[in-house]
Amino acid sequence: MSDAPHGLILVNTGNGKGKSTAAFGVAFRALGQGLTVSIIQFIKGKWKTGELETARRLGLEMIPMGKGFTWESKNIEEDKALMTQAWAVASEKILSARYDLIILDEINYVLGYGYVPVDEVIGTLQSRPSHVHVMLTGRNAPEGIVSIADCVTEMREIKHPYRKGIPAQRGIDF
Amino acid sequence: MSDAPHGLILVNTGNGKGKSTAAFGVAFRALGQGLTVSIIQFIKGKWKTGELETARRLGLEMIPMGKGFTWESKNIEEDKALMTQAWAVASEKILSARYDLIILDEINYVLGYGYVPVDEVIGTLQSRPSHVHVMLTGRNAPEGIVSIADCVTEMREIKHPYRKGIPAQRGIDF
Repeated sequence: MSDAPHGLILVNTGNGKGKSTAAFGVAFRALGQGLTVSIIQFIKGKWKTGELETARRLGLEMIPMGKGFTWESKNIEEDKALMTQAWAVASEKILSARYDLIILDEINYVLGYGYVPVDEVIGTLQSRPSHVHVMLTGRNAPEGIVSIADCVTEMREIKHPYRKGIPAQRGIDF
Repeated sequence: MSDAPHGLILVNTGNGKGKSTAAFGVAFRALGQGLTVSIIQFIKGKWKTGELETARRLGLEMIPMGKGFTWESKNIEEDKALMTQAWAVASEKILSARYDLIILDEINYVLGYGYVPVDEVIGTLQSRPSHVHVMLTGRNAPEGIVSIADCVTEMREIKHPYRKGIPAQRGIDF
């Protein structure tokens, strides 16, 4: 088999913990291998102090595009405009050949809402330079994305501390 | 609710990718929050260049205890002795109160083989200082561990690139 990089489409989905956390783990691994990495955030406030601080120390590029877009937002037109802009930034990077790994954090959620057309994302992924890895995270990955992906993992919640009333823990949850 | 840390037992199990990777993600998040972290390796060669290099840069404590213990090992007595030693190191750290987070990487596999008694691990976990988080990774988490855990996530393989004959990719898989 060839040693040339074979760019992968990787998807972390499901209702459990670890989707974005594992994506950060891959980003840190890739950095350790000298790869160029960008993480683009599609949902406001998903990134926490802990990973932001470690990313800063390592010089990991993190682009928060989710600004006003939250789980509770009511302004559909504004959200759609924000997400269109986020996708424009992401797709430029994916096609640019400047990166080895691009993580689209929580994009599945945005796709599920139809704010960015799934077909457009698929088209961009399929046109990317062959060495570029792209990882998409978030619940309910669209079927079209799953079908073109090389690697799909479902993080399934078996038990969650919030259900026992335990508050989020510093360094673990944020 | 109290702001004092509530030490969690966290389990990443299942046949999919991301169990150890998400554990590393949590370690990097915890480091960013100034927590003291140790990762103890129960299986030889599981850690790859990428995360080792990033961990080195960040000064993350990683203790490879799996030396001769591999998936293919045939020497049961030697394996058992190695794993007993690994657990002795791990349990001392868990009980010591010197750490905020201790990751027992691939310990589930060892417990499944009966090389370390599950009851002993449960006893140690239940006797630990109350602020200490412990994360256990590996397939087939024993029921006893799941039952005392606060958070259990199953990483389920939906699609895997190896099945398509794509070799492991630098920066993604290692």
